[in-house]
Amino acid sequence: MPISETWLLPDGVADVLPEQAQVIEALRREALDFLATRGYQLVYTPFIEYIESLSSLSESNQDLDLATFKVIDQLSGRLLGVRADMTPQVARIDAHVHPVEGVARYCYAGTVLHTKPQGFNTTRAPLQLGAELFGSDSIDADVEMVDVMLSLLQTAGLADGIHLDLGHVGLFRSLVAHAGLSKAVERQLSDLYQRKALPELAEFTQELKFGADFYNLGRYASDLDALQANLSAEIFENPEFKQAFDAVKQTQSEIQARWPALHIGIDVVELRSYHYHTGLMYAVYAPNRAAPLAQGGRYDGIGQHFGRARPATGFSCDLYALCAGQFKQIQKVVAPKGTDKALLDAIADVRAQGLSVIQLLGNDDLKSVPNATHQLVNVAGEWKVEAV
Amino acid sequence: MPISETWLLPDGVADVLPEQAQVIEALRREALDFLATRGYQLVYTPFIEYIESLSSLSESNQDLDLATFKVIDQLSGRLLGVRADMTPQVARIDAHVHPVEGVARYCYAGTVLHTKPQGFNTTRAPLQLGAELFGSDSIDADVEMVDVMLSLLQTAGLADGIHLDLGHVGLFRSLVAHAGLSKAVERQLSDLYQRKALPELAEFTQELKFGADFYNLGRYASDLDALQANLSAEIFENPEFKQAFDAVKQTQSEIQARWPALHIGIDVVELRSYHYHTGLMYAVYAPNRAAPLAQGGRYDGIGQHFGRARPATGFSCDLYALCAGQFKQIQKVVAPKGTDKALLDAIADVRAQGLSVIQLLGNDDLKSVPNATHQLVNVAGEWKVEAV
Repeated sequence: MPISETWLLPDGVADVLPEQAQVIEALRREALDFLATRGYQLVYTPFIEYIESLSSLSESNQDLDLATFKVIDQLSGRLLGVRADMTPQVARIDAHVHPVEGVARYCYAGTVLHTKPQGFNTTRAPLQLGAELFGSDSIDADVEMVDVMLSLLQTAGLADGIHLDLGHVGLFRSLVAHAGLSKAVERQLSDLYQRKALPELAEFTQELKFGADFYNLGRYASDLDALQANLSAEIFENPEFKQAFDAVKQTQSEIQARWPALHIGIDVVELRSYHYHTGLMYAVYAPNRAAPLAQGGRYDGIGQHFGRARPATGFSCDLYALCAGQFKQIQKVVAPKGTDKALLDAIADVRAQGLSVIQLLGNDDLKSVPNATHQLVNVAGEWKVEAV
Repeated sequence: MPISETWLLPDGVADVLPEQAQVIEALRREALDFLATRGYQLVYTPFIEYIESLSSLSESNQDLDLATFKVIDQLSGRLLGVRADMTPQVARIDAHVHPVEGVARYCYAGTVLHTKPQGFNTTRAPLQLGAELFGSDSIDADVEMVDVMLSLLQTAGLADGIHLDLGHVGLFRSLVAHAGLSKAVERQLSDLYQRKALPELAEFTQELKFGADFYNLGRYASDLDALQANLSAEIFENPEFKQAFDAVKQTQSEIQARWPALHIGIDVVELRSYHYHTGLMYAVYAPNRAAPLAQGGRYDGIGQHFGRARPATGFSCDLYALCAGQFKQIQKVVAPKGTDKALLDAIADVRAQGLSVIQLLGNDDLKSVPNATHQLVNVAGEWKVEAV
């Protein structure tokens, strides 16, 4: 948790003080400027919306609904939600507010609120930054998104030792559909995959239709060649399965070509948010951190909620988590009282260099300025900046 | 209202689309960078807090309490408020979280939410930007604050034709105390001043103790010399009244010296937010706009709520209102598909110049990129940017 806390604030909510706010503000700007060079246009989304607008994802994702603070709109009497994720809002903009033909690219940065922390020791008010691409179902769009996500972390100086995880909900989903499994069995399987419980999976799949394929999907989830060697030919003839498999393979090879030194891991049964996603999923991890630095995936059809289903893929990250533990020393120049032109010009000069200059007030002296690092002193008729 | 609206959004809430988000983002950065050079340190304050923390001002200002959305904290069962004003939060930081001796200067920028629009045709989600100075009761601090507010508007290119209004709650308050008026009479007087209802004021003050002074305070509210000539000597001997009068006079003369061309208006019975403020009040108006561009004042003692009462003065503004109606054309360069080095280098070069470059995906062509302004074309073996 990068943020100082006081007894006054609720759990998972914190002030960001100047030494860290500077770091986060700089990263925010760097990230948005980088995304602009890649063609992602900045939007600001509203902090509150009618709950129906925010729930385009929560129909398939009860977690998001539970994470959303609700209030009554005193103007309409209707229920409002405080945004817990900005992705559905950007999808609404793509569908309705800014409907362009062809491919649309948006980026955003803003605070979202969660009723409860989403993980161990995490904030309830992440500073979510993300990028979304609408209108292309091409694998090129997924590759671009992963490349943008990696480049963003590189721009921010956070690419050292990172590794990329690739997954795809389509393998599991198409296999479930092919085998005609019930929802209940699907949930049990999903749970076994999540827990990486291979012995249990072996037992569970013994009696199952296509049980060997379900077992091998888990057993060889991180090795595409072994997966291909061990799954039945019938499965590979299923067009949905084949397409999903090829998408992971192609993304891996194209990203590896662009990022030769990057460690890429595959996990085709990583189903964290598979109710929400519809295709390729990606996450970047840093050494010694449990939570991903950034993550995303394809979520085609989200715009249907707003009357315009379009292919969509995107990622997001929490700027607070990216900046965890970073602080910047604040430089502060103190100038004496006075209104003579030479002094005021000297102050303006130093400010024009981007430095912070405080002129003393009333009966104040240098001691009344906390953490002053420099002062403006008159040396033989000339104003000079000297360390305190 | 600078922001596009759709049928999907609640009244007073809106998306900010790319053409305007660029303008607001640029102003936000410019403003925070300017404030940094004046020694104001950036803080990020939480979006939600226990309602008790947010209500430091609302004890004396029921409007703020009514403007605050409330939710139940699922972790503590306590009532949380969504910030409707960031000033009390920054005061909390000064009092508790970042307690420095001497003078502390903070700035902030962030969305606040109001249960209802605070004025005609205004947003319920202003992007509040402000600066606060704690720990100095010197008139120098008020003068600095007004100067910073004006300089900020100048930096933003918004200083053309503006005028400054100065007021001070101390004149009315000390006169009320001197005359020993009841709360009810005070409220009636305050209402008459607000409505600039001179004939009614004349009638109302006829029977009142110090009635002539109360009438003349309203009659000569915008002319300090006439006020001095028409108020009774006894009132000018009241030290609180004298101090307030001198504070307005000194601020006017010091600001006029720094801003010789500025039109400065005085209104000592402008009592908009006098429950909240404790001293000098200031507002900047632009031609043809009813609402002030920026406003603020002294609110000593706010930190008492957090156990540390300190002198305080500050101003704030709504970035959306400042940017109303401004849009920026978006430049977009489209590059063809391909991974050959010359093309990728050319794309990287154009991006390094800060331009936005989109590389085509899948089977897309130029037409699939909305509002493309330029394209990267190969002319005799060299990649060049050309207008579409």
